[in-house]
Amino acid sequence: MNTEKKTLDVCLTPALIENFNTDNTIIVIIDVVRASSTICTAFYYGANEIIPVADKDKALNYKKEGYLIAGERNGEKLEGFDFGNSPFEFMSTDLEGEKIAITTTNGTRNIETVSKHAGIDSKIVIGAFVNYKVLQNYLRSSSKNILLVCSGWKGNVSIEDTIFAGKLVEDLNRFNQYLPTSDAANHALIIYEQAKSDIFGFIMDQSMRFKDKISLLGNDIRYCLKEDATNAIPVLVNGKFINKQEATGN
Amino acid sequence: MNTEKKTLDVCLTPALIENFNTDNTIIVIIDVVRASSTICTAFYYGANEIIPVADKDKALNYKKEGYLIAGERNGEKLEGFDFGNSPFEFMSTDLEGEKIAITTTNGTRNIETVSKHAGIDSKIVIGAFVNYKVLQNYLRSSSKNILLVCSGWKGNVSIEDTIFAGKLVEDLNRFNQYLPTSDAANHALIIYEQAKSDIFGFIMDQSMRFKDKISLLGNDIRYCLKEDATNAIPVLVNGKFINKQEATGN
Repeated sequence: MNTEKKTLDVCLTPALIENFNTDNTIIVIIDVVRASSTICTAFYYGANEIIPVADKDKALNYKKEGYLIAGERNGEKLEGFDFGNSPFEFMSTDLEGEKIAITTTNGTRNIETVSKHAGIDSKIVIGAFVNYKVLQNYLRSSSKNILLVCSGWKGNVSIEDTIFAGKLVEDLNRFNQYLPTSDAANHALIIYEQAKSDIFGFIMDQSMRFKDKISLLGNDIRYCLKEDATNAIPVLVNGKFINKQEATGN
Repeated sequence: MNTEKKTLDVCLTPALIENFNTDNTIIVIIDVVRASSTICTAFYYGANEIIPVADKDKALNYKKEGYLIAGERNGEKLEGFDFGNSPFEFMSTDLEGEKIAITTTNGTRNIETVSKHAGIDSKIVIGAFVNYKVLQNYLRSSSKNILLVCSGWKGNVSIEDTIFAGKLVEDLNRFNQYLPTSDAANHALIIYEQAKSDIFGFIMDQSMRFKDKISLLGNDIRYCLKEDATNAIPVLVNGKFINKQEATGN
């Protein structure tokens, strides 16, 4: 066994992050529907930086400092905010050079949880279908270990984030060059294998969260599953995401 | 939608138990390899009560009170203990009427975690392949909700417990009479579907924990996957498991 192998694992919800050593690790935060996809999209349309904030009032304070603010709770846009959390709202050239503060029901809180646990020489990046190819290249080109952290839903697992993690496990580990450290990676991989022929249909069939929300979220979900719709690699630096397109992963 | 449906869900590791409302719920603790299987086996061979203790020294104290003591850490029997955690050690008529205190690396600690979270009018029982049929009948005959709690491994998920939970979800919910409350139930179900044609092979292939332990645990694992090898239903009453074979589930 080559002990030089990098590790590759999946944290099925941020509530389980303490099980993982995240030193020298790229931590990929996954919130497919919708925070990850929205953040990538905003960068693709020219946003300069994106601050995730867990709290609604904190986001409103950023507005006074000239930020655009995006906020959502339970799928609905918050009052007084410039945007909700639909990626379609961020497809505008008006975003060029702008700073955005974003707060979502689930995603931004999870970013806080993960940040607190990030180890020495770790990096936090955003993963989504919409930045799949550039993200995969970025991860492959790095000498660091990889931990895929699914945002899940309200502390528990979510089928769409698990599927995405499984896809990355399959593609990254095609030649068995990474070592999983727990059974969570195979959970994700097995579920992705079952979902991959029709991910949208699978999610709509399986998700507890979206069953009654197809009219509200259907188009967003379709977009969120679109591979490579952007080339953004959001990287967290001092509490803010910037777009590290030119990253080599080191 | 029939709002009278009972809920049926899966907690993939005890670390996620706080996500679940366990009032009026039968909580099934699953530690297929090996605590659940061993406890069922000990009852099947006549044990009178089994006390799970998280701590090795506590178990040794019970010895002074006339209990037989069973203890294991990382798969190996503890020194000074009557038994390790292999179900084969408990297949003896000498167990008739005996009281046993048991401590295992993972399983007994998880029982403590789950007990602390148990809600009003909840019950805690032990589930394993070796008591599958009687357990399933017991759960079906109850008017309570059902939560399947996988012990997992060291705070994270484990493939064998997830598979067992998925099997119960499939069989219990064959006619769609239960409501899942999270995406965790379908995680388990999907994984069981992939594993069911050869569960032993699947586990040995997929488990991080058992890869190097086939010589130590292979026979135990084969037994632990044997359906209906016992007819025990261990139910936790005042911190002790008793065998409630005559249970109606109410």
